[in-house]
Amino acid sequence: MDETADRILDAAFARIVEHGLRRTTMDDVARAAGLSRVTVYRRFSRKGDLIQALIMRELHRFLGEFEAAVGPLPTLADQVAEGFAVTLKGVRGHALLGRLLAGEPETILPHLTLEAGPYLKVAREHLAGHLRSPESEAVAEVFIRVTLSFLLTPDSVVPLSSDEEARAFAARHLVPLLP
Amino acid sequence: MDETADRILDAAFARIVEHGLRRTTMDDVARAAGLSRVTVYRRFSRKGDLIQALIMRELHRFLGEFEAAVGPLPTLADQVAEGFAVTLKGVRGHALLGRLLAGEPETILPHLTLEAGPYLKVAREHLAGHLRSPESEAVAEVFIRVTLSFLLTPDSVVPLSSDEEARAFAARHLVPLLP
Repeated sequence: MDETADRILDAAFARIVEHGLRRTTMDDVARAAGLSRVTVYRRFSRKGDLIQALIMRELHRFLGEFEAAVGPLPTLADQVAEGFAVTLKGVRGHALLGRLLAGEPETILPHLTLEAGPYLKVAREHLAGHLRSPESEAVAEVFIRVTLSFLLTPDSVVPLSSDEEARAFAARHLVPLLP
Repeated sequence: MDETADRILDAAFARIVEHGLRRTTMDDVARAAGLSRVTVYRRFSRKGDLIQALIMRELHRFLGEFEAAVGPLPTLADQVAEGFAVTLKGVRGHALLGRLLAGEPETILPHLTLEAGPYLKVAREHLAGHLRSPESEAVAEVFIRVTLSFLLTPDSVVPLSSDEEARAFAARHLVPLLP
């Protein structure tokens, strides 16, 4: 991603956190980025493309944090438990996700469900790299689906308010799926 | 649920399948049911309540089908595999869900995610009855979350186009979680 695209996405992120997705136009983003409309439209021809690029950039950023937390751990079981805890904390504390899910869920839910295929793919391939088996991608996908589900539907019989609880859940309910 | 409520929900179901959720008002439902607005509003004071009742009735109806398919099977592992296959087929072939997810996802997604707690609870308690262990509810919840996720985000590395594939997925990726 080039510098201009990054600058557009930075401006879009800040603008959407403050005003929401519905009340943010491509013109607003151009103005906030200090760029012309033409420059913005050359990078992102539709608002939907811009949002997709924004989510993808956040995902890659998060995978960096995930790696820093999970990479050094000795066993795969430790990595799964910590990875689940870190991801849950990451999505729960995410400024943009929190703002949109609370304030205008109908604008963000399609991206996190029906249109989430590309993000699921990136996360799955990343996670599968840790698992190293012919079934890695399917197992990784199940882990991601369960985690995403707790973001989409927080109501649960499972206690998940602390990192310890998150790790205990993963140890009991995800680790047995390891290849 | 009384007969009048059932008649209202029947009318709402048919009307929404044909015209969608956004273009269905409480007046439309009253007219389709051959009832007065007052009668409809006495049962369901808001459109949201009516939709919730509609989804809950469909869920109970489906749990009956689920039971008929799964109940006679000899082992818990068989029940999980068949239960997953039957549920996937049930949600994929559901006229109302299909219509709304394809045509106006933003109207139905909040019900299937952020507001899905009450449905998740009913399904979880039903499923946990089969599992019979102190951890039954948590395990049931994971099964339901994974299944719901395939409805919400169909894009997958897992082949799930036939009942055989669905059963194979469940045998490999859900059964190991049994208590």
